[in-house]
Amino acid sequence: MCFVGIDVGGTAIKAGLVSKDGTILKRTTCPTLPTRTAAEIAEDIAALAAALCASKAQVESIGIGIPGACDDKNGIILHTANLPFCNFPLRATVEAKVPLPVYLGNDANCAALGEYSMLREKVQSMVFLTLGTGIGGGMILDGKLYKGAGGMAGEVGHILLRKDGEPCNCGRYGCYEAYASVTALIRQTVAFLKVHPESDFKKAVGEDYATVNGETAFAFMKTGNDDARKIVDTWLGYVGDGIVDLINILEPELFMIGGAISREGDVLLKPIRAKVEREAFSKGKPYPKLQIAALGNDAGIIGAAFLGRMI
Amino acid sequence: MCFVGIDVGGTAIKAGLVSKDGTILKRTTCPTLPTRTAAEIAEDIAALAAALCASKAQVESIGIGIPGACDDKNGIILHTANLPFCNFPLRATVEAKVPLPVYLGNDANCAALGEYSMLREKVQSMVFLTLGTGIGGGMILDGKLYKGAGGMAGEVGHILLRKDGEPCNCGRYGCYEAYASVTALIRQTVAFLKVHPESDFKKAVGEDYATVNGETAFAFMKTGNDDARKIVDTWLGYVGDGIVDLINILEPELFMIGGAISREGDVLLKPIRAKVEREAFSKGKPYPKLQIAALGNDAGIIGAAFLGRMI
Repeated sequence: MCFVGIDVGGTAIKAGLVSKDGTILKRTTCPTLPTRTAAEIAEDIAALAAALCASKAQVESIGIGIPGACDDKNGIILHTANLPFCNFPLRATVEAKVPLPVYLGNDANCAALGEYSMLREKVQSMVFLTLGTGIGGGMILDGKLYKGAGGMAGEVGHILLRKDGEPCNCGRYGCYEAYASVTALIRQTVAFLKVHPESDFKKAVGEDYATVNGETAFAFMKTGNDDARKIVDTWLGYVGDGIVDLINILEPELFMIGGAISREGDVLLKPIRAKVEREAFSKGKPYPKLQIAALGNDAGIIGAAFLGRMI
Repeated sequence: MCFVGIDVGGTAIKAGLVSKDGTILKRTTCPTLPTRTAAEIAEDIAALAAALCASKAQVESIGIGIPGACDDKNGIILHTANLPFCNFPLRATVEAKVPLPVYLGNDANCAALGEYSMLREKVQSMVFLTLGTGIGGGMILDGKLYKGAGGMAGEVGHILLRKDGEPCNCGRYGCYEAYASVTALIRQTVAFLKVHPESDFKKAVGEDYATVNGETAFAFMKTGNDDARKIVDTWLGYVGDGIVDLINILEPELFMIGGAISREGDVLLKPIRAKVEREAFSKGKPYPKLQIAALGNDAGIIGAAFLGRMI
């Protein structure tokens, strides 16, 4: 018995045949080419699913992770920020090619489910945060993926950190994402460089700000540079602020941080852990375990595959 | 079959014998006298439980709502802000007097459970917010009271609204509670009166700021006063900010607002509803229903009674 999981991203559609213990037995992929129509992209998704199903007799279900909002009940992609899907009946398109149950889920929810499914030590509740271009979230509560009334829960990047602060893509001012995403870190790094042309950090980076990425400040901090350390410390403070908020609301057993920047490991975890111990409401109680996501890019495929599985 | 529910407050301990359909069949109460020792208060709680149990043969369980953090697994009150309980084994004290299962819960969680149990139209998910001296919260997720890993979930007053803003009792700066509690509204009202001694509002209130309460600005706004309207609008904006945050995270089917100030009804609900429609992330999707709590003070007794009941 196995499952097909498909992770639809802005660049590539990645699919995998996943065993019930979470091993990816076979992979296939194609470019998303997001300027195409929704129908064209959906045909490619269905074709990947069909190819993987044809390779193995006992596929139980197909799960698809979407970077946007899904109505899983009706099999519809409601909307996406960077793809052409809007009120698109993806389930019908895929089921027309493959006679299997098809489940849809938000990509951050899928990543949370993937990471949760593969934990060595089981927990009852976990909050998963991805730090990237934006901030995504997924929650496992009382042992189940929590999706919200309409599949829209987990938009944890869009809670206020500083009312009336930085503008956010969602229309509010001062969202967590506008301070603590990797995009925000890059903006904070460039802002420093512009204001301090005399600094060693600026001299090391040079004139081309387009080379600044999420790792720039971390890397220069590791050479012993104090300016870079301050930039990183401030950003980690923002990241920690939202984590404390989510712990105060949900008090999960485990808090997991993903996204490429999470490869910084303890450099990222240690100050956040200290902040949680200092600022979380439940002082003196055991704090949630904080850890770095383990599966990297595979979490999305594995979690999508498990959307249809009771966990 | 019925249940005993006990709502332990700073002023009074209120107990009720509650039928399985949520009717309070019998009530009893005693003063808390919070300067006494924890053991003395616990004896009174046990005595109220015993009296109600003696009045009816078929009591199934006893539930106790505490204004603080409880470890229900071990039957211990971890800590309270305004009562002397700290790591106190309340279950053992009560079970020594009454041979029935005893459950402990946070008071806001109990109020949420009470309101949820008595809903005419059932929902799968509900967030309950009490606006009072502080801000408390309770969550029903996937049809169950969500307590968090250690019974500490729902501290929704302690999420940031404005980082580095007003000091909060919890030690952070800029918490939701520091802007949107009734205490904050009173502070905001008094701050206006001090700065505008020439205003009609100041003349109406007079010199004694101790008379200002949560209703002062609402009442004067209803006479047509623009200053009072601005104070109320600003405060409702803060209240709405946190509600949008919680909707973005949890997307509940129903969002319920309680606390004495919620008697303002539509005066409170309408601007908050407009803000949710303007600012919540899931634009264009059905928004959570927003409504005012129905049970008032009885929610705590009914919810405590139902702590031990599967809902």
